[in-house]
Amino acid sequence: MGRSGAVAAAADDQQEALVRALGPDMVLVGDEVGRYCRDWHGDVTTGAVAVLRPRSTDEVAAAVRACASLGLSIVPQGGNTGLVLGAVPDRPDSQVVLSLERMTAIRRIDADDFSAVVEAGCILSEFKDAVGREGMFFPLALGAQGSCRIGGNVSTNAGGINVLRYGMTRELVLGLEVVLPDGTVFDGLSTLRKDNRGIDLKQLFIGAEGTLGIITAVSVKLMPEPDRVATALVGLNALDDAIVLYRRARRDCCDLLSAFEFMPPLAFVLAREAIPDLAMPMAGDYPAYVLMEISGSGLVDIDDLMERFLGGVMEEGLVADGVIATSKGQARNLWLFREGMNEGQAKRGPHLRTDISVPLSRLADFVRDAEAAVAAALPDCVSVSYGHVGDGNVHLNVLPPAGLSPEQCAAQIYQAKVAINVVLDAYHGSISAEHGIGRLKKPDFDVRLPAVQRQLLTAIKTAIDPTFVMNPGCQLNFVQNS
Amino acid sequence: MGRSGAVAAAADDQQEALVRALGPDMVLVGDEVGRYCRDWHGDVTTGAVAVLRPRSTDEVAAAVRACASLGLSIVPQGGNTGLVLGAVPDRPDSQVVLSLERMTAIRRIDADDFSAVVEAGCILSEFKDAVGREGMFFPLALGAQGSCRIGGNVSTNAGGINVLRYGMTRELVLGLEVVLPDGTVFDGLSTLRKDNRGIDLKQLFIGAEGTLGIITAVSVKLMPEPDRVATALVGLNALDDAIVLYRRARRDCCDLLSAFEFMPPLAFVLAREAIPDLAMPMAGDYPAYVLMEISGSGLVDIDDLMERFLGGVMEEGLVADGVIATSKGQARNLWLFREGMNEGQAKRGPHLRTDISVPLSRLADFVRDAEAAVAAALPDCVSVSYGHVGDGNVHLNVLPPAGLSPEQCAAQIYQAKVAINVVLDAYHGSISAEHGIGRLKKPDFDVRLPAVQRQLLTAIKTAIDPTFVMNPGCQLNFVQNS
Repeated sequence: MGRSGAVAAAADDQQEALVRALGPDMVLVGDEVGRYCRDWHGDVTTGAVAVLRPRSTDEVAAAVRACASLGLSIVPQGGNTGLVLGAVPDRPDSQVVLSLERMTAIRRIDADDFSAVVEAGCILSEFKDAVGREGMFFPLALGAQGSCRIGGNVSTNAGGINVLRYGMTRELVLGLEVVLPDGTVFDGLSTLRKDNRGIDLKQLFIGAEGTLGIITAVSVKLMPEPDRVATALVGLNALDDAIVLYRRARRDCCDLLSAFEFMPPLAFVLAREAIPDLAMPMAGDYPAYVLMEISGSGLVDIDDLMERFLGGVMEEGLVADGVIATSKGQARNLWLFREGMNEGQAKRGPHLRTDISVPLSRLADFVRDAEAAVAAALPDCVSVSYGHVGDGNVHLNVLPPAGLSPEQCAAQIYQAKVAINVVLDAYHGSISAEHGIGRLKKPDFDVRLPAVQRQLLTAIKTAIDPTFVMNPGCQLNFVQNS
Repeated sequence: MGRSGAVAAAADDQQEALVRALGPDMVLVGDEVGRYCRDWHGDVTTGAVAVLRPRSTDEVAAAVRACASLGLSIVPQGGNTGLVLGAVPDRPDSQVVLSLERMTAIRRIDADDFSAVVEAGCILSEFKDAVGREGMFFPLALGAQGSCRIGGNVSTNAGGINVLRYGMTRELVLGLEVVLPDGTVFDGLSTLRKDNRGIDLKQLFIGAEGTLGIITAVSVKLMPEPDRVATALVGLNALDDAIVLYRRARRDCCDLLSAFEFMPPLAFVLAREAIPDLAMPMAGDYPAYVLMEISGSGLVDIDDLMERFLGGVMEEGLVADGVIATSKGQARNLWLFREGMNEGQAKRGPHLRTDISVPLSRLADFVRDAEAAVAAALPDCVSVSYGHVGDGNVHLNVLPPAGLSPEQCAAQIYQAKVAINVVLDAYHGSISAEHGIGRLKKPDFDVRLPAVQRQLLTAIKTAIDPTFVMNPGCQLNFVQNS
């Protein structure tokens, strides 16, 4: 990392002081720090003074106090699966990573109370499995669920494929335990469904990406397991029809929709580049596809509902063609196209990934205009737009042509982002629908931030973290009020 | 109000200054102020320097600046239907009421976008009707909906009967426009479903009861209108069975439950005291009753679902008896018991009203213990417990016997509250499930507030409203940090 000798010596002193204050079990230094200082995609590698791995809320509090006394700032980290560098240090000489990976306990699952309490470091899929063993369901579902940790999901207000039915992570949270920048503990782990005692403090920490404190445990809502799932892939004559179909599906299917994803025809090409033996699900070739899922438990015949719904919209001509999965294996196969297309994009090399939202009624218009803007600016690039219709959430990715130098590739990625953002701003959309800001999107966030919002964010940051020890460099470069 | 001559003279000066700054159309003084300074129940009457009635966001901002320059503080008010004195002044010599009643415009309803934008002063039922004319549905539903206004619903994070399906008001809000204490405008009226750009500032103002700013407009989620509704009343052998039935209903009815209210046998007596010709819905007499509703749109046969569900649980003996409404009129009749019991309580004279939540799995235990505590302390009083099972929300009201003096009655109400709160604290429940804190619950809130929460609330209040002009006296008596 090119540190000077003097700074390196200072780092040694700080590491020793951390070990003295917190014990050798909690503190990692040297080579072991590396894996906590790389991002999920492997695009960025940095460093840190140390990695702290507390085993309890009290140990987190002790770590925060020790860092404060040494003038070190803290980058909280869960599974480090974030896509915007929110948990990767950017000031290796003055930051420690505080990993929650040892706080994995599920403190309680109460099916009668439709709630659970879980520590921040529990891996999402392990929590979902444990909940499932009690006959219940935790609906958060995303690609990284085998590695991401609950605390990170809450800190980033994670989205995923079930948002249209169950909401973002924020809507699943009943309570939080947070170690604050001064080392005190905000103890708000209630499982009350309704608690309207004034300002809801926990909301501040959801989506704050660790800039206001360290989430150590979470209480969440549970649902009945939807043990009946019907999955279908439909071909449409235009992406515009996806919006009409979505409105129709919400109404006809009684809000039992749990996924409604759109994909371009290229999705199948890309998926088969990653998974060559994937069987094509339908014969024709359509300008747009929707992968939809209806789910529920109990007395509603979900399969019959899907059949009647699709039968109706196909008869009317709103849907050109469709297949309903008749087994879990077939359903899994349909989802493999959605997942495989990401792998296929990765295999084509570095590319622009976006996470955009627009008003959902304007999703098709936006995709058309933004893809046209990319084509005009970069005729050799390929645009791939897919995402969550019900959330107005588009992942418009841009793949540069093969054979470019890394610098040329980076330049085209940057140009593509600029072209898309011009269109996005005209649609009053968001540069981050579900991934957060972190460090990666900070410049694009910063330049669009209205003065009033900046003033409020600065006032809140200064009120709760007056010495800016919590994840500095993430979300905004705060400037102390004079 | 017993003002001294000097203070009254000062009030005249302030009134004149307000008229000069804001024009005579915006400022009410004298007798016209009265109706803005009484609470919904008529228990409390105060006064105010003036009532300001702006017609636009800019006029609200001008009013805030004028008050600041005159050293007046502001009590924002919507429909003034709150139950905790959040919108009623408590310092008549230094407070103005700022009523949003003239900001009633529905700025946009967009069925394709599943969203609407509405000004704070729009009456809830008028908004719901307008949304319904576009074939959509806004699910917030409460007794006061013909008088309450959207801004007040958001400021108090209102609950109501549909919370178990659609969440509190917080979960329905997509964006806010807020005039801040310095007269600047937070412009956050986006209708994006997903927007994860860091800390979600709007969350601070939801439930803040006007202590951080004045909500002037709101963007909200809309749903498909659930045009099929099945309503049933069931008799149970014990309130404990309501918890078991609720879990079963959530699962069997595929999360299509839209109401699940419990009532005691006394509900029917009280309702018929208010509405004497109300026909009894079933023959037997049971220790507990549940009024439940399943609703949906489109292709799911809701009536059939209710019949199969009730058939199953009656065959198993979980439900002792049940009636399903076979017409809208019959359904309305069932709801009249739920609504009429409140009128019946009011007819019996002053009584304790509570708004408690406990973990929903412990609701029946709590009701038993709390009613026993009241009976031990006040053997002549009658307890009436009813509420929303799915939210763990109990309205445990206590009716003193007839023939007491007002002072005796007030003393018994106070004693009953103390007895209930002792039990509530042992259950880690909330003294305000859905009504908020306001001024009425401030002492009970204050005494239970942990030091860390108090410090956070004070830090936020001081950061956003440093001169404490926004609804002082509501929620907490803040003390400036030294």
